[in-house]
Amino acid sequence: MAENELRVGVIGVGMMGADHADRLVHRVAGARLVAVSDPDTARAAALAGRYDGVRSVDDPLALVADDEVDAVVIASPGFVHEEQVLACIAAGKYVLCEKPLTMDSESSLRVLRAEREAGKELIQVGFMRRFDPQYAQLQQLLASGDLGRTLLLHNTHRNKSVPNPEFRSEMIVRDSLVHEVDVARFMFGQEITTIQVLSPAPTSHACEGVVDPQVALFTMAGGGVVSNEVFVNCQVGYEVRCEAVSERGTAIAGRPQSGLYTTRVGEPAGSWGGTVDPDFIARFGLAYDLEFQAWVDATRRGEVVGATSWDGYASTAVCEAGMQSLASGQPVAVTLVDKETLT
Amino acid sequence: MAENELRVGVIGVGMMGADHADRLVHRVAGARLVAVSDPDTARAAALAGRYDGVRSVDDPLALVADDEVDAVVIASPGFVHEEQVLACIAAGKYVLCEKPLTMDSESSLRVLRAEREAGKELIQVGFMRRFDPQYAQLQQLLASGDLGRTLLLHNTHRNKSVPNPEFRSEMIVRDSLVHEVDVARFMFGQEITTIQVLSPAPTSHACEGVVDPQVALFTMAGGGVVSNEVFVNCQVGYEVRCEAVSERGTAIAGRPQSGLYTTRVGEPAGSWGGTVDPDFIARFGLAYDLEFQAWVDATRRGEVVGATSWDGYASTAVCEAGMQSLASGQPVAVTLVDKETLT
Amino acid sequence: MAENELRVGVIGVGMMGADHADRLVHRVAGARLVAVSDPDTARAAALAGRYDGVRSVDDPLALVADDEVDAVVIASPGFVHEEQVLACIAAGKYVLCEKPLTMDSESSLRVLRAEREAGKELIQVGFMRRFDPQYAQLQQLLASGDLGRTLLLHNTHRNKSVPNPEFRSEMIVRDSLVHEVDVARFMFGQEITTIQVLSPAPTSHACEGVVDPQVALFTMAGGGVVSNEVFVNCQVGYEVRCEAVSERGTAIAGRPQSGLYTTRVGEPAGSWGGTVDPDFIARFGLAYDLEFQAWVDATRRGEVVGATSWDGYASTAVCEAGMQSLASGQPVAVTLVDKETLT
Amino acid sequence: MAENELRVGVIGVGMMGADHADRLVHRVAGARLVAVSDPDTARAAALAGRYDGVRSVDDPLALVADDEVDAVVIASPGFVHEEQVLACIAAGKYVLCEKPLTMDSESSLRVLRAEREAGKELIQVGFMRRFDPQYAQLQQLLASGDLGRTLLLHNTHRNKSVPNPEFRSEMIVRDSLVHEVDVARFMFGQEITTIQVLSPAPTSHACEGVVDPQVALFTMAGGGVVSNEVFVNCQVGYEVRCEAVSERGTAIAGRPQSGLYTTRVGEPAGSWGGTVDPDFIARFGLAYDLEFQAWVDATRRGEVVGATSWDGYASTAVCEAGMQSLASGQPVAVTLVDKETLT
Repeated sequence: MAENELRVGVIGVGMMGADHADRLVHRVAGARLVAVSDPDTARAAALAGRYDGVRSVDDPLALVADDEVDAVVIASPGFVHEEQVLACIAAGKYVLCEKPLTMDSESSLRVLRAEREAGKELIQVGFMRRFDPQYAQLQQLLASGDLGRTLLLHNTHRNKSVPNPEFRSEMIVRDSLVHEVDVARFMFGQEITTIQVLSPAPTSHACEGVVDPQVALFTMAGGGVVSNEVFVNCQVGYEVRCEAVSERGTAIAGRPQSGLYTTRVGEPAGSWGGTVDPDFIARFGLAYDLEFQAWVDATRRGEVVGATSWDGYASTAVCEAGMQSLASGQPVAVTLVDKETLT
Repeated sequence: MAENELRVGVIGVGMMGADHADRLVHRVAGARLVAVSDPDTARAAALAGRYDGVRSVDDPLALVADDEVDAVVIASPGFVHEEQVLACIAAGKYVLCEKPLTMDSESSLRVLRAEREAGKELIQVGFMRRFDPQYAQLQQLLASGDLGRTLLLHNTHRNKSVPNPEFRSEMIVRDSLVHEVDVARFMFGQEITTIQVLSPAPTSHACEGVVDPQVALFTMAGGGVVSNEVFVNCQVGYEVRCEAVSERGTAIAGRPQSGLYTTRVGEPAGSWGGTVDPDFIARFGLAYDLEFQAWVDATRRGEVVGATSWDGYASTAVCEAGMQSLASGQPVAVTLVDKETLT
Repeated sequence: MAENELRVGVIGVGMMGADHADRLVHRVAGARLVAVSDPDTARAAALAGRYDGVRSVDDPLALVADDEVDAVVIASPGFVHEEQVLACIAAGKYVLCEKPLTMDSESSLRVLRAEREAGKELIQVGFMRRFDPQYAQLQQLLASGDLGRTLLLHNTHRNKSVPNPEFRSEMIVRDSLVHEVDVARFMFGQEITTIQVLSPAPTSHACEGVVDPQVALFTMAGGGVVSNEVFVNCQVGYEVRCEAVSERGTAIAGRPQSGLYTTRVGEPAGSWGGTVDPDFIARFGLAYDLEFQAWVDATRRGEVVGATSWDGYASTAVCEAGMQSLASGQPVAVTLVDKETLT
Repeated sequence: MAENELRVGVIGVGMMGADHADRLVHRVAGARLVAVSDPDTARAAALAGRYDGVRSVDDPLALVADDEVDAVVIASPGFVHEEQVLACIAAGKYVLCEKPLTMDSESSLRVLRAEREAGKELIQVGFMRRFDPQYAQLQQLLASGDLGRTLLLHNTHRNKSVPNPEFRSEMIVRDSLVHEVDVARFMFGQEITTIQVLSPAPTSHACEGVVDPQVALFTMAGGGVVSNEVFVNCQVGYEVRCEAVSERGTAIAGRPQSGLYTTRVGEPAGSWGGTVDPDFIARFGLAYDLEFQAWVDATRRGEVVGATSWDGYASTAVCEAGMQSLASGQPVAVTLVDKETLT
């Protein structure tokens, strides 16, 4: 093992990147964390100091170019992804890039073209739900054909709260709904052709002016319909479900019943049930571990698994259309370049 | 009891009416079935002969006028409802009329005005889900305010199959979605202002040309949004759910877990779970019983409970708009007369 | 219907009997409450006054003998059951007697012999769980043979609290465990041959000296084993379950999931689940309704359904052995007379 | 990381040991598989050849003594455990020994004393359920006191089938019930003082003469009672549950609902539910991963986590008493040496 252990560098060590660093050190086999980089160089140095043999590198592009770095994890803010991913492509290094691939479909397309020109798939986009055991099992069930053709999906995406006053309605589309965009494409194995975002009367727990919850509808290339609820100030916890409706049955991934089932004292009578996951880390922590293990394993074999750069481009394009629809209330068609020619 | 026992006549003794007759004889306290009427007079006579003291009356309007009939159940086809309900109003008799109240909003409005002019509420429309213990409990929970303001509903309405080749897409709106229309109005306590009916690629189990499943969206007067799946050839069974999303929590009525929980031999591994109700009688039989008991009890007190003639009118008007939207794919506004003046 | 409507008298109108009176008036078809009797004659008179055409009769045996009473419900304390049931047999009247049939197996045997000598089955004992839809469905499933031979049962019987300082450990056996005794006999269709009652360290919520919870084991005539938990001060609510383990699968009746499924705000994260039934009336109210309807229907046909006098005798005999085992901690054999000869 | 990476040798590479080897290579961070040993030297060599840098060592004691082996996993048959564990103690090496620690309580005591004399805790016994997220969460909930004192446990342990004609009733006690013994001790934090094993009429799917299912009862030192069902030919799948009953609530670990929830076509109506895990690897694969990661992490810190040698000794002693009870049907007291003096 040690012979071809994968030496990994992590760019961006905020909450997410620091968690990924810890994951590489403590929960992933066959990889070794060797370098970290962050604009907050003190934060990077502190993190590096916590582990044996990890260096802090000030310039993220130097980290990418470093000979001792075999592969790169990008957990920096979205607006620097393009430059950093392009550097990985130029260096011929495998990269696991947190979503979004880039900030808009134009820039995603540039990345996609650069990778295509380099002649080798190198990019995995961090849509971790594809590695959640239940979402993965659902996709396999649908792909198996056991339930017949898939007709509808109903996605539910609830988050406890977003206390940040800077939070905007568009961020629900770009940061939350984007996961449902990938789920829809993953489950159907088709592109999304139109998106419509409805603006119900908002909860009083949302910050002033924020449209929350949102209800979004996708039409798939084959005529399937996907309904989505995204509700980021639901107050209860983190609850994410996908119900697929097929010709001969239905299947739900993500019912919130993974923990203990309890009955407890209460008034007037007691309650039965369990606890909703508090946040995405509790819910998808195992999915991140499995995603990283799969990325390390695939990279060592010279392969790419999970969401590709095309998936990153397509989801970005759908969300752009979604933001238009959020503004207009009307369905908006999604236009993608041709997958073969990228034009 | 016997002193003011309610003497009931039933008009229309097809499957539904015959079931209601049996309900009155065997499962409802304080009522006595005394007369039945049906265009198929042999069928009516056979049914009457099955019970002591029940007469068969050829003319339904004669049944309504009969001095020995205190109250009337209408289970005849929708297109004769207007005439029969108007006769009940003219005779001053309480009536439980199966949905739809009448075939279109114009005729429903005539009924509504006649009842208003008679000066006394007499009509209950047979939206039995309001008497289903779980739907009733959900409405009470939402009305209690414990979960805060209601923001969204997600309704699921699945039926095993509709083998009838005469079946049309519009019937899904008028006969199935109409229940969700009433549920939305019942849970929110508000009118529906717009309806949009989407036409996903249909299941191969639907008859040629039938749009099934359908996804419908309602906007409520207060800005809430309701998403509905109606799927009448789902092949599995009868599965009806309502999930309410409120400011401080969510609640689901109708999870299909009322029967036994089993584990069973299977291949490769066994299964855990239970059985989906086969049809609406299994699912809502108790709701019908409770609806009839409530109707009998209320009628003996001189009151009307459940869905009123206004509810019958409003649901008919929403479905008219829904049929337009089914044709156009566009959202259609619902216009109702003023509830006070009926103009 | 009215022609052969069943005229019913109720003996004992404490909480249970008053509820049964109300049931006969408001929720059961084909019956008419005509008389009530209670040692507290004012209470009986008050109840009678609440309904049209109901008389209060001071002497319960006069009620039994009354020509206008077709059938009798006995909801009086157990120690007067023998005399009252014997009077019903003497009068040739059908009787629904709340459990226990009588206070001990000797007296139950006298009742059984009297009924046998009268030459006609007249007695139903009020083991209402046999009419609970899930328990009934479980019995049918086991009897169908679909899961193969039944091997084990695990019964759970939890009650919120018994605040009465007069409460004794023996009452858990006689009043609570007796239901599990009937369930075991009903599900297996066999007699119980030995019973063992264990005394775990009691909950601090039980009154001084009361053994609660109790764990009891039954051996069935065919070698099956039944484990029972009875816990009458569980603080949470009323929770009653039966899990059957058979050769090719298992089945559970009574999971506490009949109401709404909710997610709710909580700390640190929210909860999913529902509410445990507060008491036996909430849990088994429908079972009582169905039991009474079945009793009225059967009586009008001249038949007996549900638990018979033999079942009443056998369950009393098992509980007698259970009380011995509670004292000794040892398994105690159950001895029954021969069912044919009653000797 | 690489600096103090734990170099691990695995003794015994049958199904379980080979799975552990794979686990160390592919799913555990911070460890390196360096050597394997098996009486079937060809099997060991084949396994070693599958990975870079892994040697096959014929003599297991040579593997223990090897300077390049920091720590040892023992997955050999139980009857050689004593010698191999004693060798690890002599070499001062941490060892993760699959249960049972040794074949009887006498030999377990010898191991326990040797470790005590060596002056350093080195042994973890492979009771992997302590690392199952739900079992761990249940133990934490009970230890937290939130539900008050624990009164009862009900354990369920079902396995699809044991087709081996060599299978004996005693093996159910020693190999299956032993897990429930550890669960009871883990959840209560107390020793078991008596054990009683009942022999219900066996399933026809068990081999001739095998008592299956078995029902076992434990009394805990504090007076709590534990009921256990062990059924190794249940035909359905692998289903393991633990329900704890406490003074103010109950909690269940292991309801079989971790996968997808589906509704499916069936006859007469469809079914809802999911799939029972096929075997212990599907059910507890993640628990094994977490157990190994915890063992590697603890060993690198110089600590022992999970079940200790005392736990291994105590569970062996309880099972010895259980096998006596299986033969006699009577409760058998469990006698342990004094934990401090080991006499």
